[in-house]
Amino acid sequence: MAKYKIVFEPSGRMGNFLEKTSLLKCSQKLNVGLVNVCAGKGTCGKCRIKMLEGPVSPITKAEKKHLSPEELHEGLRLACRTRLLGDCQIYTPASSLSSLQRLQVEGLERAVEAEPLVRAYPVTVTPPSLKDLQPDLERLQCALEAIGLSPPFLTDEEVLRTLSPIMRENHWTFSALLRDGEVIGLQPKGSPPLGMAVDLGTTKIAAYLMDLSLGKVLATKGQMNPQVDFGGDILSRLTAASRSPEEAAEMREKTVDAINTLTAALCSEVQADRRSVAEFVIAGNTAMQHLFLGLPVDFLGKAPYVPVVKTARDLKASSLGLTGAPGAYVHVFPNIAGFVGGDHVAMLLASELYKKGGLVLALDIGTNTEICLAHDRKLTSLSCASGPAFEGAHIKQGMRVADGAIEHFQLSNSRINYQTVGGKAAVGICGSGIIEITAQLLLAGVIDSRGRMHLGPGVRETKGQREFLIASAEGPNPEVIFTQQDVREVQLAKGAIRTGIEVLLEVNKVRVEEIDQVIIAGAFGTYLDLDSAITLGLLPALPLDRFRQVGNAAGMGAKMALASRRRRLLAQEISNRVEYIELASYPGFKKIFTPAMNLEKFIP
Amino acid sequence: MAKYKIVFEPSGRMGNFLEKTSLLKCSQKLNVGLVNVCAGKGTCGKCRIKMLEGPVSPITKAEKKHLSPEELHEGLRLACRTRLLGDCQIYTPASSLSSLQRLQVEGLERAVEAEPLVRAYPVTVTPPSLKDLQPDLERLQCALEAIGLSPPFLTDEEVLRTLSPIMRENHWTFSALLRDGEVIGLQPKGSPPLGMAVDLGTTKIAAYLMDLSLGKVLATKGQMNPQVDFGGDILSRLTAASRSPEEAAEMREKTVDAINTLTAALCSEVQADRRSVAEFVIAGNTAMQHLFLGLPVDFLGKAPYVPVVKTARDLKASSLGLTGAPGAYVHVFPNIAGFVGGDHVAMLLASELYKKGGLVLALDIGTNTEICLAHDRKLTSLSCASGPAFEGAHIKQGMRVADGAIEHFQLSNSRINYQTVGGKAAVGICGSGIIEITAQLLLAGVIDSRGRMHLGPGVRETKGQREFLIASAEGPNPEVIFTQQDVREVQLAKGAIRTGIEVLLEVNKVRVEEIDQVIIAGAFGTYLDLDSAITLGLLPALPLDRFRQVGNAAGMGAKMALASRRRRLLAQEISNRVEYIELASYPGFKKIFTPAMNLEKFIP
Repeated sequence: MAKYKIVFEPSGRMGNFLEKTSLLKCSQKLNVGLVNVCAGKGTCGKCRIKMLEGPVSPITKAEKKHLSPEELHEGLRLACRTRLLGDCQIYTPASSLSSLQRLQVEGLERAVEAEPLVRAYPVTVTPPSLKDLQPDLERLQCALEAIGLSPPFLTDEEVLRTLSPIMRENHWTFSALLRDGEVIGLQPKGSPPLGMAVDLGTTKIAAYLMDLSLGKVLATKGQMNPQVDFGGDILSRLTAASRSPEEAAEMREKTVDAINTLTAALCSEVQADRRSVAEFVIAGNTAMQHLFLGLPVDFLGKAPYVPVVKTARDLKASSLGLTGAPGAYVHVFPNIAGFVGGDHVAMLLASELYKKGGLVLALDIGTNTEICLAHDRKLTSLSCASGPAFEGAHIKQGMRVADGAIEHFQLSNSRINYQTVGGKAAVGICGSGIIEITAQLLLAGVIDSRGRMHLGPGVRETKGQREFLIASAEGPNPEVIFTQQDVREVQLAKGAIRTGIEVLLEVNKVRVEEIDQVIIAGAFGTYLDLDSAITLGLLPALPLDRFRQVGNAAGMGAKMALASRRRRLLAQEISNRVEYIELASYPGFKKIFTPAMNLEKFIP
Repeated sequence: MAKYKIVFEPSGRMGNFLEKTSLLKCSQKLNVGLVNVCAGKGTCGKCRIKMLEGPVSPITKAEKKHLSPEELHEGLRLACRTRLLGDCQIYTPASSLSSLQRLQVEGLERAVEAEPLVRAYPVTVTPPSLKDLQPDLERLQCALEAIGLSPPFLTDEEVLRTLSPIMRENHWTFSALLRDGEVIGLQPKGSPPLGMAVDLGTTKIAAYLMDLSLGKVLATKGQMNPQVDFGGDILSRLTAASRSPEEAAEMREKTVDAINTLTAALCSEVQADRRSVAEFVIAGNTAMQHLFLGLPVDFLGKAPYVPVVKTARDLKASSLGLTGAPGAYVHVFPNIAGFVGGDHVAMLLASELYKKGGLVLALDIGTNTEICLAHDRKLTSLSCASGPAFEGAHIKQGMRVADGAIEHFQLSNSRINYQTVGGKAAVGICGSGIIEITAQLLLAGVIDSRGRMHLGPGVRETKGQREFLIASAEGPNPEVIFTQQDVREVQLAKGAIRTGIEVLLEVNKVRVEEIDQVIIAGAFGTYLDLDSAITLGLLPALPLDRFRQVGNAAGMGAKMALASRRRRLLAQEISNRVEYIELASYPGFKKIFTPAMNLEKFIP
């Protein structure tokens, strides 16, 4: 039989397959990682792809059920229902990729004009002699003036300490890194100044190495935040840090070490010298930023939760222990309040919410969910304590995104289908799976809108607690269940987020159906199945085309602030402009929260 | 017999003594520490005091021999020849006090107008509440604006880290320390801002704790520079520091620790909190300042001896490990060249040489002797490698100023008289003793002007080396001798200094007799017997009233720069104005140096 070439974009994976092979099978052989809950039966509708080029089999009934006429018209297909009839080029939307294929470092990609704070200038100085006794610093300053730069040229002690040897090693000709007239380092001629943008999450750290002269990302890398040893959630870290200054210092050092390790790894990946890293930008929540700066957090965890500082901080990277150019600065994002921090500002910067007309809702769902409502450019933000349920914590068999985590789930006619991360035997449930399981149980009537689980097929009672069996024990793997208590945890989380949205609507005197766009940022939000979230009333029941899952918008904001001086000022302006609402003291909070826990669509 | 009250100024020591007691005896009973080489016989002429008030015995022949008519007219007397006839008030000039009574911290005292960089402002802020969520920093900034100060108020991370607890501990009312609009610390209301002026010598560290609001010294203390463990002289320290960064770091840390210890001791002496120390000023030679700042010294010890930096440095005290107010700065004096440093600038500042008309010579004699010639306000400076002889090193039985060191010496009619520090049995010879012994041996013809020691009374030859016996062994104490080689060391040191003076005169096209004033700064210079120095040709043979021994002028300069912003600018201006001469590359250096080693009076 004939063989055809198939290419999956944007990953570029390609291979040759026999005629009539299903596109899903091709994708599996090439490790593209398409979502596939129903094992290719055409019932889950998750393996959406878009045809870019090439002949394939005609549209099937199953596809007509799962895709709208507009979507079909645009070339969308279900990979499991589509067969190869010639050389093909195929686009895989991020929403169709399973978790492991979506790096934390992926995200909203925006072109950023390079307008860096640091520039490299080639300099040549005359060597000293008994007839020319000028000190090394003054020698450099004269050379900088000679190429048309204006004094004074500040130089801190860390830079001064490196000046004399570098000038001699490079035989008096080198590049000087300048930042607003300050000399922050010398380096061999020709190497561009680099920068590190860091999204400092409670759980994960995502780092981006950029060429500052071009505003271009050279390499990216993520890793766990080593602070998780001190507690998974923010409050347990605040408690640990308040308890002892030593623990606070240790937490700080671990984070700094992690960023140094990431810097080293990224630099070595592009064969650059770490001392060329001339600027760091950090975006994290208020607690992460306070801990990173070594600020006390004793008062951040207690009412009225005031931070020490709200404005952006520019300080010497070396003063925090970060390794880069000797005089490198670290810019830490401005905060808004105790629980609405720099990552939220970065998200607002990246999503350009500040300049969007109409009514736009933006959420970053996590243990604390920060929500902003932009109403004709007026920004109102709040934070709700949604808890760690969506990160797998407090859920009996919850887990992080890792091999064997159930990430997608379908229950139709009492038949269970699920997909695990890496296609491995099921060992637990990650965030997106938790949402989909709850939604499917609700639709199937296993639980009602008050969250009560009813006895019936798949439901059993163990020690007075009802639980739904998802996967039986298999070899070394335990059985996977979803309990009544798990449903309660989802309700609490969902109730908190819905309350936040309702308060923002109320404060702005607008109605839910007026929302023009919903932006969902962050890792969990990227994996989140919109249908399920709408079914549960976690997100407003709006047409799907009003939603945008933008990935790591905080990381993108950090990159923008690193690449551009103007974006950095804009971030501070956003922080100043946002009106913050303290949900805990909002009148009528309880009256909204109680019904918000019901599992009902969020409709007008 | 009647008893009378006697008071010695400026120490204020007082007591009651029988009529006709000699003033020397009174001073001894009261531990005033008057110099007394001839054991009260009236032959050495060292125990000069000045009568301020009260009746004493008439002027004797011995006094007429040792004091000029002008001096007698001014009330000068020899304490050993003057007897008490009523209540008396007596002034003891510094030059008549033996070494132990002259603290290193003593010095040229000049009134300095207080014009400090740091001021304390009383502030009260409103505490946060759920209705007032302003961050702590912004809260403070508003309060500062409310008392009429203008933003922006910079605040570094070290200060930020202390803000929240201090505001709460002081119940929202406290003092803010501001330095040029920067908040450098908060403290309880009422305590004045303090400062530390530090004369960072190669051998000794002298520290002065000042009340910045009054420009007043509250307490002073000196200690050895712990870096002596790495070598007594500058070059051996530069070698150690160049050899390994670890040793350089250790040297730096030891000095920082010493300053921290001095700060703690001085603060505890006046019952102040260390965190009130809002500013440090450091004056030391170029090498000491480089080591203190952690700058590389590899190139300072090698021709052409260029420093890394010449301008004054203002940096965060905490960045060097100094303990004070969290945001305190340390100001490090400007240098002039590799071997003419901040201590020389401080000396020029204190002696006000920069504004003196006529021809003024100023010296600070040490291992390196810095000399400045002011010619109608034009300043020319150089450094000569005079070696450590005057500090007791390289001299067979040389020692530092300590118990048992011979500090004064007289040889008349083959009879030896000497005075030791603390009146203890002689164990060695300190700097002033070395000068006096050499001069007395020259006058007695034991050595000739070429420095050759001749056999004769007191001179013996041991292993081919001639040596002069000063004190025989006594109990556990060794004999004290002065050798031919010791004379050579004195000649080298003296030759270097005299060469320096001659070069300065030559460059300025002036003659030695035109010098209007000779200012001698530093510890050794204070103890130095002018007659002896003139006899040896170490100092020009000018009338004694043209000499001023000003003590620790570098320390005074440091205090002035600490107390006054204007003096600090002046120091930088002095550093810029001084014309530096590199002696090593001066044409005809050798031609001047060789005869300069002869022991002859320095006359036109």
